[in-house]
Amino acid sequence: MLAINAPDPASTQPLYRQIYLSIKQKIESGEIENGSRLPPTRELAGSLGLNRTTISAAYELLESEGFVRGHVGRGSFVSRPGSSLISFSSSRPSELLFPLAEFRATCTEVIQSDDAQTILQLGSPAGYGPLRRYLLDQARLEGTAGDGDDILITSGCQQAYDLLQRVLVPNGETVLIEDPVIPGLRNVFQRTAGRLVGIPVGLAGIDLEALQPAIRREHPKLVVVTPNFQNPTGATMPMASRATLVEIVKSSGALLVESDIYGALRYEGDPLPTLKQLDGDRGTVLLRSFSKLAFPGLRVGWVIAPRAIIERLTVAKQWSDLHTDQLSQAVLFRFAQSGRLEQHRRRMLEAGRERLRAAIAACEKHLPPEAIFTRPAGGMNLWVRLPEPLDAGELLAAAEREGVSYLPGKFFGVSKMEPGGLRISFAGLAPDRIETGMAILGRVFRTAQERAREFSRLESVPAMV
Amino acid sequence: MLAINAPDPASTQPLYRQIYLSIKQKIESGEIENGSRLPPTRELAGSLGLNRTTISAAYELLESEGFVRGHVGRGSFVSRPGSSLISFSSSRPSELLFPLAEFRATCTEVIQSDDAQTILQLGSPAGYGPLRRYLLDQARLEGTAGDGDDILITSGCQQAYDLLQRVLVPNGETVLIEDPVIPGLRNVFQRTAGRLVGIPVGLAGIDLEALQPAIRREHPKLVVVTPNFQNPTGATMPMASRATLVEIVKSSGALLVESDIYGALRYEGDPLPTLKQLDGDRGTVLLRSFSKLAFPGLRVGWVIAPRAIIERLTVAKQWSDLHTDQLSQAVLFRFAQSGRLEQHRRRMLEAGRERLRAAIAACEKHLPPEAIFTRPAGGMNLWVRLPEPLDAGELLAAAEREGVSYLPGKFFGVSKMEPGGLRISFAGLAPDRIETGMAILGRVFRTAQERAREFSRLESVPAMV
Repeated sequence: MLAINAPDPASTQPLYRQIYLSIKQKIESGEIENGSRLPPTRELAGSLGLNRTTISAAYELLESEGFVRGHVGRGSFVSRPGSSLISFSSSRPSELLFPLAEFRATCTEVIQSDDAQTILQLGSPAGYGPLRRYLLDQARLEGTAGDGDDILITSGCQQAYDLLQRVLVPNGETVLIEDPVIPGLRNVFQRTAGRLVGIPVGLAGIDLEALQPAIRREHPKLVVVTPNFQNPTGATMPMASRATLVEIVKSSGALLVESDIYGALRYEGDPLPTLKQLDGDRGTVLLRSFSKLAFPGLRVGWVIAPRAIIERLTVAKQWSDLHTDQLSQAVLFRFAQSGRLEQHRRRMLEAGRERLRAAIAACEKHLPPEAIFTRPAGGMNLWVRLPEPLDAGELLAAAEREGVSYLPGKFFGVSKMEPGGLRISFAGLAPDRIETGMAILGRVFRTAQERAREFSRLESVPAMV
Repeated sequence: MLAINAPDPASTQPLYRQIYLSIKQKIESGEIENGSRLPPTRELAGSLGLNRTTISAAYELLESEGFVRGHVGRGSFVSRPGSSLISFSSSRPSELLFPLAEFRATCTEVIQSDDAQTILQLGSPAGYGPLRRYLLDQARLEGTAGDGDDILITSGCQQAYDLLQRVLVPNGETVLIEDPVIPGLRNVFQRTAGRLVGIPVGLAGIDLEALQPAIRREHPKLVVVTPNFQNPTGATMPMASRATLVEIVKSSGALLVESDIYGALRYEGDPLPTLKQLDGDRGTVLLRSFSKLAFPGLRVGWVIAPRAIIERLTVAKQWSDLHTDQLSQAVLFRFAQSGRLEQHRRRMLEAGRERLRAAIAACEKHLPPEAIFTRPAGGMNLWVRLPEPLDAGELLAAAEREGVSYLPGKFFGVSKMEPGGLRISFAGLAPDRIETGMAILGRVFRTAQERAREFSRLESVPAMV
């Protein structure tokens, strides 16, 4: 039981603030342990002879200051700022790796340039000319874009999904996507009354043995695939299955959409050709974005596709938001063209490699031996499948009480829910934090496993009455 | 006939370049008059004994340097840079009024601030917190937003239209809009199979006598109105009809959408309350934007509406483009909060008043006396209706040959096409350019009128055979 001194009614400090200070001091000193639950407001109010709203006000202040995290229906838990939550929940690089100085320099160059006035005027629905040409030239050099391809700059990759749905499958035609997949992709195609079919993703990417019959059965209009470091699984398709995938999809008459927003973040091994590159007539639609590499708050992505598709997407884009923000396009263009993006990417690769290795090592060391996990060669995420009967969604609360969070499989399911699945986003954390966090998760999962075993032993013996 | 010296085959200059220089020199000296047509490439090639592609290359260079403007099927016309086109086509302020120095200062403050790193991370679908609070507080102070209202930041006003269509009339339910209206609004609601009905706009805004029976007949789900300085007509609804409009729409059960992107640009008279303000239960949806006031290339607009509507719009927004560009939101927030926006607005009001008066005076002086035109009290546009049988679309080519452009009525028609209608966007031009441009237009229109009269005289007498 928490020992709080009764507040002093004669003090100049309001009662709630005295309670707040008293609890805060105990959290900071370690007297109240990190992760422990504060008493319910009613209980503490009763024991101190105070009004319950006074206690609530104190708890709210603690929460707003970051000393406590509230969970609806479960109470308030101490979360000492110094020992802040280890979050495996967000697929993004660490803020410490963020190239703020380079951003400032780039942005200053752009706004001081003679072009600034033009940049701030209305732009083209297709995108800022210099950026479009730069990205298309790069894709041509790489061999990904052909002569018949064109480019559309979108307000991030999310808008590219949105426009593809609106232009290519407006009436809810069938779409095949990976399962699990990020909600931003699933939800766009789920909005319409259309049929969305999830194709399982294994350790080597989308399962071709499941894809082939699904294509024959469903006659999809679109097949959307992320061959590099798929989110959430981190899986990468090997060369052989890329060629087969292209062949299967193309021969069915479906349009292949390749999402490649993590492709530039390969930490191990040699880069593989894009699906679009393997596609003889370059009919594939390729999506890319700056968001995972540079500044997520600047919403700039792009689509490279045969000219006829780009034309239709551009018309839809115009009536969606006229055009993508010009300032951000100009800043990202300069960031790329000046070589700063490539320098920054190299730093990200170094840090990413270290973190990826730490994550895999920690999974090996701490997860229950029956757990399965992917071993990505890049990107920001790996996927864990806990052994039955563990449910990653149910275990999240226990993990958060211990100061670690992740996203359970249910966020990513399409046709099939995987209760044991969970995503570990490792790119935002330093190796030692990854190790600490995975150790905690391992303990939570093993404890749950123990309990499940005990329960199943109980189940198998007659009840003692 | 154009007298061009035959090029010198011994020169170090390529043939096409010699032709280019020769024509350029004659344009600059005034020997070739501004607005005159260059000979067809085939003709000039023949007369000089050169290949036609040589002449084409010379014309292309002249065009790319701005000395000539090509019109498909009509040939190439001289357009001397010093006497550049007077364009009444674009609803935006002059580039000379553009607050570039203030933008640079604002942007520098934002990127150098401690918040820069946070701003560059992923943001909220609802918008950048400080900007949302600022705009909502302002609307509450003004009496436009009520306690039950909330706000969503959109990627410009165009996205607000898009989201409203998707959330409120996804299945093509009937929508009433003003006729004429801007294509960006019309096209969004026309995309779906839905019924879009145009209600005529008169000198005093939307025609209530046409609206009332249309509402009874059509049972619309939405009625979209721009009460201040409507685009393209410039018409403003007087106080009395605002109240009546709100009453008519509300009692029908339709949702009223008020577009107010020009409202802050009133040059004459006192501001009138918004429709939302007159709407007792504040059920009206209000759209506003920074684009017409500040930097059109930064795509930031907003919607203020009852919380339940904002919630649905925000979900749709999230799957459209995750969130609006953070850098632009932060820059515009600071621009507004620092008082620079208001200073800039005052300068725009001064310039706009002068320009509006010049435009009205020039219309009175130069248009055929039978023409009708609106007399806006603000905004950027006025509307001219030419007397029959003049067709503003057909006359545009003649006007452009004289160096003046505008947008003819056909761009803006919804249910009814007005061949005599045209939009004069006056805000981007200095008063003397407005006077010069309208004088030219007046001449073009009167000449056409003369010709039409002659033709009708011819029609009324028996042919001489």
